[in-house]
Amino acid sequence: MKYCNLCGSTVRFEIPSGDNRPRHICNHCGEIHYSNPKIIAGCLPVYEDKVLLCKRDIEPRIGFWTLPAGYMENSESTRDAACRETLEEANARVSNLQLYTLTSIVPVSQVQMLYLAQLDDLNFSAGDETTDVQLFSEADIPWDDLAFQTIKNALTFYFHDRKTGHFPLHHVDLTIPAGQYVEKP
Amino acid sequence: MKYCNLCGSTVRFEIPSGDNRPRHICNHCGEIHYSNPKIIAGCLPVYEDKVLLCKRDIEPRIGFWTLPAGYMENSESTRDAACRETLEEANARVSNLQLYTLTSIVPVSQVQMLYLAQLDDLNFSAGDETTDVQLFSEADIPWDDLAFQTIKNALTFYFHDRKTGHFPLHHVDLTIPAGQYVEKP
Repeated sequence: MKYCNLCGSTVRFEIPSGDNRPRHICNHCGEIHYSNPKIIAGCLPVYEDKVLLCKRDIEPRIGFWTLPAGYMENSESTRDAACRETLEEANARVSNLQLYTLTSIVPVSQVQMLYLAQLDDLNFSAGDETTDVQLFSEADIPWDDLAFQTIKNALTFYFHDRKTGHFPLHHVDLTIPAGQYVEKP
Repeated sequence: MKYCNLCGSTVRFEIPSGDNRPRHICNHCGEIHYSNPKIIAGCLPVYEDKVLLCKRDIEPRIGFWTLPAGYMENSESTRDAACRETLEEANARVSNLQLYTLTSIVPVSQVQMLYLAQLDDLNFSAGDETTDVQLFSEADIPWDDLAFQTIKNALTFYFHDRKTGHFPLHHVDLTIPAGQYVEKP
C-alpha cells in the first residue's frame, strides 16, 4: 500500500498512537488502514462412501485436486459462503453442513473453515475455476496430487473419523512458512 | 474507497470480467481491490463458578459489559488472537481454549469466534480499552448492560450448558440489520 484509498495521498507505515503494531497511515487525512486475515470457506461433500474433489484451473496449484472452497464475501455467513463456493466451483448442492476443520494458516494470514456436508445429488460439473469434478472413494483419493496441506488434513481426518462415526471439529494452526506445507507431488 | 492504494489513481466500482459481484477497480493500473469479512476473536474466561467481563471504554457501546475480544491481526492464529485480546483488554491470562461460539454477524461482515477458556489467576486489571474488569457469578451478570447480542448469547449458552457439563460449539448466523441485535438497556 502506497496511497490512501480515501483521499489519494501517500501513506507512511508506523505505529499509530495508542496502538502496538505498525499500520499504513495517511499523511494527509490521517486515516489508519488496517489489514486483517481473510476467511476461506468450503465443503467436504460426501455422497455415500465417496467425497467430491475439484481439479483446479487457477493458480496457485493449477491442475491439483482440492475441495470446493474460496474467499468468504461480505454480507454472507460462513455457511452460505461454503455453499456458494461449492456451487460455483462444482455446480453442486450440499446440505447438513457441520463445521469440521478450522485452520489458521498463519504465514498467509488466512483462516480456513471446511464444513462436512451431504452432497444432495449427482448433478455436478466443473465450474469456472475448475477443469474436472469427481467423486472419489478412499482407495482412489489422489493423495500425491492434492493442492494444499489443509485439504490433505481434512481428507485424512474424514477417513479416520468415518471408522468411528464421530466427526469432531479439528482445530489446527499451521505456522510453518508459506509453501513448505504444500505437499509436493 | 475512492483511490487505488497501489498507484493513487481513481477507482471505479463494477463487476470485473469473470467475476459476479462489483469490486473497486483501478482506472489506471487495473488492480482489483477486494473487501472481505473480518474476524473478531475473544474468550469467555471462567474462574470457578464465575466469568470475567470487561466494561468498554471505547465506542461502540462504551460503558457496557463485554467479553474480551477484538479484531484478529495478520500473522497470528485465531487462538493466539483470542489470548492476545484477553491480555490486552483485561491483563488476564487464559488456558485450555475451546471454540465455543462461531457467529457470522452478516450485516456488518464480521465473524466472531469466542473460546471458552480457563482464567489462570486473579491477577487481572483493566486494559487500555476497558474501565473495569470483574468476575461475575450467574446471578450477578448485568444482562441489561451487555454490549452486544453475541455476548448475551455466549453467556446464555454457557450458563445453560454448565448444567449438563457439555459445551458444544454454538454456530449462529445473525442476519438482522446492524443495530437491531444490540440489546437496549
